[in-house]
Amino acid sequence: MNKESISRAVVKRLPRYHRYLGELMESGVERISSGDLSQRMNVTASQIRQDLNNFGGFGQQGYGYNVEYLYNEIGKILGVDKKHGMIIIGAGNLGQAIANYTNFEKRGFVVKGLFDKNEALYGKKVREIEVLPMDKLKEFIADNNIEIAALTLPKNEAVKVAEEIVEYGIKAIWNFAHTDLKLPKDIVIENVHLSESLMRLSYNLTRNHL
Amino acid sequence: MNKESISRAVVKRLPRYHRYLGELMESGVERISSGDLSQRMNVTASQIRQDLNNFGGFGQQGYGYNVEYLYNEIGKILGVDKKHGMIIIGAGNLGQAIANYTNFEKRGFVVKGLFDKNEALYGKKVREIEVLPMDKLKEFIADNNIEIAALTLPKNEAVKVAEEIVEYGIKAIWNFAHTDLKLPKDIVIENVHLSESLMRLSYNLTRNHL
Repeated sequence: MNKESISRAVVKRLPRYHRYLGELMESGVERISSGDLSQRMNVTASQIRQDLNNFGGFGQQGYGYNVEYLYNEIGKILGVDKKHGMIIIGAGNLGQAIANYTNFEKRGFVVKGLFDKNEALYGKKVREIEVLPMDKLKEFIADNNIEIAALTLPKNEAVKVAEEIVEYGIKAIWNFAHTDLKLPKDIVIENVHLSESLMRLSYNLTRNHL
Repeated sequence: MNKESISRAVVKRLPRYHRYLGELMESGVERISSGDLSQRMNVTASQIRQDLNNFGGFGQQGYGYNVEYLYNEIGKILGVDKKHGMIIIGAGNLGQAIANYTNFEKRGFVVKGLFDKNEALYGKKVREIEVLPMDKLKEFIADNNIEIAALTLPKNEAVKVAEEIVEYGIKAIWNFAHTDLKLPKDIVIENVHLSESLMRLSYNLTRNHL
């Protein structure tokens, strides 16, 4: 199977397949037909067959998909079969919520450090993770093989900090700040713009009432 | 202008236009050409002209867009020109982070209540918002004209609570739980699946390193 050949649209849907297959595994299901999966996921069976055909021919007619195998294959494509070192910058409520969410760790995203400029937070621990001052960032990123930084900071600080940590070797930024970051092309940026999500909700709510 | 005629793709981009236009207003810019806006937003000028043409002809050649007018028009389409009553169910770190985020309130999303099943939290206040027990939900939703509920709960609880509050009159759910909710078609569901966002980041990170 050629990882390069999978279309962006399919890739966008993969995390959801991964989630459903994980739930099936948890409930002890070993095989599932595209029809059954289609009902659960509320997409057409032919969409599922098309998407999963990208992962080779292990969905045989009348026999169904091997749940665990497919889960693992999709995991490999998504890169969640490997561990990724992560830090969180901004130890407010949102940063602490992410640090506390052990499900990320199960998927290979290991939060190793939590940083803040607020001195009052230094020494505070979230799970086993201590809040550290910003001037430790450079050393920490280098010493702990950190690839990913979650930015849970106000927008003006986020822009400055992002440029700094990219120099220190960060490869990917999970950006919760209400701004777009302008960084070198080889840096991965994944935005979680909560305000924009809320506006899409509001658009649909308003349209429903027209 | 006919609200129905705007395509889904344009609607998806509107919150980002709204954000950039808001920033321009804050910095005192009254007019902007599609070329300038295009540079700032990192999309083509022709895309911008096409998108904004949906809002009538106030982008005259060589004259530029009226920033405030456009901001307000887009705000109307998104429904952020009106106030929406909101509650948050789940008063953990994530729920508190959302309750604390006053920017939502500036856009018309007014958090009126915070609910949790954890008795230890009752009486605790986030800003002026008190944490209330779950058995007050029905009355509170009716008495305070609540349209939107943010669910910051574990997935199993979220499914049950969602069905309950829809009966109590909730019109839209901002779902942070790691599951898809199955609700009547007229209920708006906007998902924020953080794990899936992190997996897209991981996919891009992995592909960059191939």
